[in-house]
Amino acid sequence: MKNLEGGILKRVNIGICGLGTVGSGTFNVLKRNVDEINARANSQIEITHIGARRENPLCDTAGIKVSRDIFDVANDPDVDILVELIGGTSVALDLISQALRNGKHVVTANKALIAEHGNTLFELAREHKATLSFEAAVAGGIPIISALREGLAANKVEWLAGIINGTGNFILTEMRDKGREFADVLAQAQELGYAEADPTFDVEGIDAAHKLVILAAIAFGAPLQFDKVFTEGISNVLPEDLTYAQDLGYQIKHLGIARRRDSGGIELRVHPTLVPSAQLIANVDGVMNAVLVKGDAVGSTLYYGPGAGSEATASAVIADIVRVSRSIGVASDNHIPHLGSIDSKLQEPYVLPITEVETAYYLRMSVLDRPGVLSTVTQILSDAGISIEALVQKEPNEGEPHVPVILLTSRAIEKRLVGAIEEIEKLDTISDKIVRIRVEHLN
Amino acid sequence: MKNLEGGILKRVNIGICGLGTVGSGTFNVLKRNVDEINARANSQIEITHIGARRENPLCDTAGIKVSRDIFDVANDPDVDILVELIGGTSVALDLISQALRNGKHVVTANKALIAEHGNTLFELAREHKATLSFEAAVAGGIPIISALREGLAANKVEWLAGIINGTGNFILTEMRDKGREFADVLAQAQELGYAEADPTFDVEGIDAAHKLVILAAIAFGAPLQFDKVFTEGISNVLPEDLTYAQDLGYQIKHLGIARRRDSGGIELRVHPTLVPSAQLIANVDGVMNAVLVKGDAVGSTLYYGPGAGSEATASAVIADIVRVSRSIGVASDNHIPHLGSIDSKLQEPYVLPITEVETAYYLRMSVLDRPGVLSTVTQILSDAGISIEALVQKEPNEGEPHVPVILLTSRAIEKRLVGAIEEIEKLDTISDKIVRIRVEHLN
Repeated sequence: MKNLEGGILKRVNIGICGLGTVGSGTFNVLKRNVDEINARANSQIEITHIGARRENPLCDTAGIKVSRDIFDVANDPDVDILVELIGGTSVALDLISQALRNGKHVVTANKALIAEHGNTLFELAREHKATLSFEAAVAGGIPIISALREGLAANKVEWLAGIINGTGNFILTEMRDKGREFADVLAQAQELGYAEADPTFDVEGIDAAHKLVILAAIAFGAPLQFDKVFTEGISNVLPEDLTYAQDLGYQIKHLGIARRRDSGGIELRVHPTLVPSAQLIANVDGVMNAVLVKGDAVGSTLYYGPGAGSEATASAVIADIVRVSRSIGVASDNHIPHLGSIDSKLQEPYVLPITEVETAYYLRMSVLDRPGVLSTVTQILSDAGISIEALVQKEPNEGEPHVPVILLTSRAIEKRLVGAIEEIEKLDTISDKIVRIRVEHLN
Repeated sequence: MKNLEGGILKRVNIGICGLGTVGSGTFNVLKRNVDEINARANSQIEITHIGARRENPLCDTAGIKVSRDIFDVANDPDVDILVELIGGTSVALDLISQALRNGKHVVTANKALIAEHGNTLFELAREHKATLSFEAAVAGGIPIISALREGLAANKVEWLAGIINGTGNFILTEMRDKGREFADVLAQAQELGYAEADPTFDVEGIDAAHKLVILAAIAFGAPLQFDKVFTEGISNVLPEDLTYAQDLGYQIKHLGIARRRDSGGIELRVHPTLVPSAQLIANVDGVMNAVLVKGDAVGSTLYYGPGAGSEATASAVIADIVRVSRSIGVASDNHIPHLGSIDSKLQEPYVLPITEVETAYYLRMSVLDRPGVLSTVTQILSDAGISIEALVQKEPNEGEPHVPVILLTSRAIEKRLVGAIEEIEKLDTISDKIVRIRVEHLN
């Protein structure tokens, strides 16, 4: 095949480390679509070395060098791009570091590694004039990293909000549609292979926090700040909250939210969130992911697609391979900076503690069904400067003296709301803890 | 400001031709976000020359060279990137050709020009080792060109479907939500400035066809084939069709659809289309745009945002300026090919005539309210190999012997369906022409 200038295509050798779900997808898509991919990359891309502890029957590796020690790939002088798909933050860190020190470009789908060690790794890449690409680390097959880094390069990003964990979104969707309990749906998600045996990363929002930190760094031109993210999981959301929210015109989604504050600083938070049903992102159901970005010039744009899966994630990995292949031989000044802005311009913004964040709230409380009780509640909120946008009192269960009352509040600084809730919970007309879920209108 | 390597930033001089809606947006966003943009481009981007027949009070051009003759910009040896924002296909063609011949890179938002003359212009650009970028030509601020060209580079694209004309989508949304007639809403759209005085381009689907052709060329690795697109407008859609469709669980959207057929060839068509309401794209309302793309590896991804507007379109223009700035000094072999694949690999596929296209159909007919009539209709369809998925008979208007009957059919080759319709229309129990709208499930 000839290149643009009529010469022979540049040869690019790929070493893939890890032949699991994403590794096998990458291997097979690269083989299946080799003609299209080479025509796009203007290169002849070949898999020349596989590093994997064991074979994967889904991959026909005949004729390709296979090493049981993945570091053999990092040290193989013929490999131009090392593709790290083993996951985790210990061996993967050593492997990528070794590859970069050897001057290889690296492509990874490893969000935990980028979120927690990206700053160090980008520095190492820069020293060795190599690139470290990570499109697949956020939202699987959705090209959200390049959209933020390049597509929206004209904008000051005001905020972004994403459904960036498919397992959590699947659980919330099932709970809402079938009235099932969290634990019950989680067990099903584990059976289906959506959730890990230890589901903490997914349902407690740690996985989403990893991805949010990466998106925020690019959006705001800042280093990665994983230790600053506020994280709240979905394990306490009840099916009735999903239904009550829906009746009020909202859906509850587990969102990662990053927002630049006019008064300075940024917010970085993952938590269950009520979103108006009329918003497109509120209609993203099941295992699908979506990221909504508000830029000062473009306004709101949304990117939707599968956030996980073998070939969906492979699609993003290979997009990076194509991009890196094209950039081989190009001076590093002409490369796209890892976090979208050149390093000397990255600024570390102050991340607000959650107590300083302002949102509206959904409150559900169990109130003694007696005149005057609600006026005491609304008075306490009013004294804290919080007004009520909607109030619904449900029917009591038979023989139950308390009724569920749902409130939607105006926007308030979290610490003021927490103070008011503490006061309300002291009332002997209120039983149980008050359930509190943040509300975002995303406009 | 210093670049990655610690040297002085590369200076890139921009000449903007046209200071209308998009031109002024580009001018002002470039000025307002200069720090962020330069940090992303790793360049010092300066507007050094404006070509415009008149001043725009929205733009402070003090200190910048302004020419009344836009060709002065194309001939200015100091200009690195010419930004064409005058629109149209005559002067713009000459202007861009001149700039490319002078070795300048060109950025344009001109979909008609790219769709109709892109093949020639890309060839000219290649000869002069220049690039011609056109992210803003499709779907305004949504970075769909780069998503297709780079983000989905791993995929064989199976099909794509887009709401790519905001005016048309605004009209259909208003008709549905308010039960208003087409002509009435069109007049309002013109007042609001959404539609041109001559609305033909928008409502007859020509504007959408321009954009579809560009998307399809990139998706399928093919030259631009504007003369092959089938186009049907929305001026015959009635408010009741929107309502009937909604009752059946569908929305009517004016879609541009490109599909690769397993049996060879591609489909290129713009027409009103019923889409299941559960599809995210069916919920894209008002002037917003969205493009849904199905790739063999990634599955379905969707890109949503404003398809027009001053700063929204400027966002895409500037994304191109950043991309081109970064590529200055890079060998053309390392550039992203104009249509995503290197020219030598572009293949011109056969475009199927609409009579050979297979879709499902929504049919509305006016039927004499008498036993046996519907069985004749269904028999004719059945004889043509077309089965009925849903049938709704509406109440007759008072004193009216005919009742509206709505049918949803199975998938059928268009010419078979047309033949059956001709037969049904011959029945004296059927009054008026049968209304026929294509249905796509997009999965």
